Amino acid sequence: MSDAKEKLNAAKGRLGALAKETPDLFQGFIKISKTATRDGQFTAAQKELVATAVAVTQGCDDCILYHVDAAKRLGADEAILIEALEVAVEMGGGPAVMYAGKALDAFRNL
Amino acid sequence: MSDAKEKLNAAKGRLGALAKETPDLFQGFIKISKTATRDGQFTAAQKELVATAVAVTQGCDDCILYHVDAAKRLGADEAILIEALEVAVEMGGGPAVMYAGKALDAFRNL
Amino acid sequence: MSDAKEKLNAAKGRLGALAKETPDLFQGFIKISKTATRDGQFTAAQKELVATAVAVTQGCDDCILYHVDAAKRLGADEAILIEALEVAVEMGGGPAVMYAGKALDAFRNL
Amino acid sequence: MSDAKEKLNAAKGRLGALAKETPDLFQGFIKISKTATRDGQFTAAQKELVATAVAVTQGCDDCILYHVDAAKRLGADEAILIEALEVAVEMGGGPAVMYAGKALDAFRNL
Amino acid sequence: MSDAKEKLNAAKGRLGALAKETPDLFQGFIKISKTATRDGQFTAAQKELVATAVAVTQGCDDCILYHVDAAKRLGADEAILIEALEVAVEMGGGPAVMYAGKALDAFRNL
Amino acid sequence: MSDAKEKLNAAKGRLGALAKETPDLFQGFIKISKTATRDGQFTAAQKELVATAVAVTQGCDDCILYHVDAAKRLGADEAILIEALEVAVEMGGGPAVMYAGKALDAFRNL
Repeated sequence: MSDAKEKLNAAKGRLGALAKETPDLFQGFIKISKTATRDGQFTAAQKELVATAVAVTQGCDDCILYHVDAAKRLGADEAILIEALEVAVEMGGGPAVMYAGKALDAFRNL
Repeated sequence: MSDAKEKLNAAKGRLGALAKETPDLFQGFIKISKTATRDGQFTAAQKELVATAVAVTQGCDDCILYHVDAAKRLGADEAILIEALEVAVEMGGGPAVMYAGKALDAFRNL
Repeated sequence: MSDAKEKLNAAKGRLGALAKETPDLFQGFIKISKTATRDGQFTAAQKELVATAVAVTQGCDDCILYHVDAAKRLGADEAILIEALEVAVEMGGGPAVMYAGKALDAFRNL
Repeated sequence: MSDAKEKLNAAKGRLGALAKETPDLFQGFIKISKTATRDGQFTAAQKELVATAVAVTQGCDDCILYHVDAAKRLGADEAILIEALEVAVEMGGGPAVMYAGKALDAFRNL
Repeated sequence: MSDAKEKLNAAKGRLGALAKETPDLFQGFIKISKTATRDGQFTAAQKELVATAVAVTQGCDDCILYHVDAAKRLGADEAILIEALEVAVEMGGGPAVMYAGKALDAFRNL
Repeated sequence: MSDAKEKLNAAKGRLGALAKETPDLFQGFIKISKTATRDGQFTAAQKELVATAVAVTQGCDDCILYHVDAAKRLGADEAILIEALEVAVEMGGGPAVMYAGKALDAFRNL
């Protein structure tokens, strides 16, 4: 299992443990998450890439893994990931360059 | 002129003044910006909405005005703006709700 | 009406307009919000102050107004607001000092 | 020794090295920190949880370890930690969910 | 009085009101602030510009006013302000461009 | 090879992979970066420390490694690094204290 996959699994394990302690909160968050990523004018895959772009500017490693993985499962290819990362760099400067590098690496290793 | 338009014009005026003092920096930034927003698998309009989603999570008022305005000029309608804002709220919680409200308001008044 | 009250009302107006366009998202957010602020070992008023401390470190003006107002309505006095602001400054440095000043000002004018 | 404990110790080691080079700065920071976490209407333990909520929205791993550890030593139980994390998620969305998972994990392993 | 000066005065007024309620916290913050901005290999004016660069990437309007004003009083000219803003843009992307525009504007109007 | 050096090399490897996929974006970023760090009233080394101070308040580990390394190569000594870190703590509070500890550690191990 790649390092990226292991880290993503660990993150998902922590989410599961948290969800068990506060199910109402998670119900609310899942409602938001489902609403935010249903197909529309943006496809679901594209929406996961919007989330990736945001995560890159936020510098959230686990979020990058999570949303890159989701985008890939929904059929996003590397070319459109790069497009999302370019917007992230426009909006986030140097740190976004660093985390965009992590997002590309995650895409290739998940 | 609406309040949103006035604020956007003021921001653009400040950018112009800054660009005059550091043209090399702006040349670099414009190169990034053009690369990030050219048509691809995401249309240019969609990319401005990705930038809007990021700006909403960053709480940058002038960025919201700037990218909402650009998205609108490129033909984005309110329904797809809402889609981008939904992802922003997923990634930004309460503050993103507040700034998403400003983005919708800007869309209607620009 | 004080300036703080006017700004809070404007923010609430924008939230209402947004909620109308994406009711499912708001349903999810309200579920989170209700879960987060119900009475527990922290009282509801104290939880609004935790939210205020976070908002101060995030530099979100409208969030500060919103959560200071909610805390005040739930019975928080100025002394406990100051306690929350002190933690915010510990965690946020100079900018938190600035926004803590705004939070105190909001408390006195809402 | 758990992974969380090791990471916290490493962080404390780095703080010690830094404090030696800039004792005046640390004197100031300790003054802030002591003021922010003395017993009041919020207990000291609750204040460490306010700091934890802020740290979760900031995505600061070492801060989460530090303040979760302090809260636990002061007698906070898991139920009140969850309350603080719920407010963090309200204010921080998806990334806060990820870091809240880390905070719960830290609480159980410190 | 320019708009920038008015806003800075209002911010200083709020800080004064806050300081009165939590003098110990302010004593700690002033200790940090004095330590951080004493002359060294960076002059005091340069240090205020480092603070300005940070404030620009944080998007803190009042901090920008405060530290631009301090830098100017200590003798910084516009050319060195621009240098600090260039680093801020490198580290902060689009939002930093927006707030750098505000910093230049503040310098000219304070 | 120290842990810091290994992490920096890994980050640089990721940047190289990303640059290959989006050369225009990197051309723009390099233009910004070169403009931001040329000698001026701040020396190039000092500008790398301004970037370090920003990175510390942003909590970007790889950025800290990158800019501390660059500052050191350009001749910055530990004393001036500490000066930059002091401003970062003034502007970033507790999390900045944590990341400043990492910056000092990086300086000593790169």
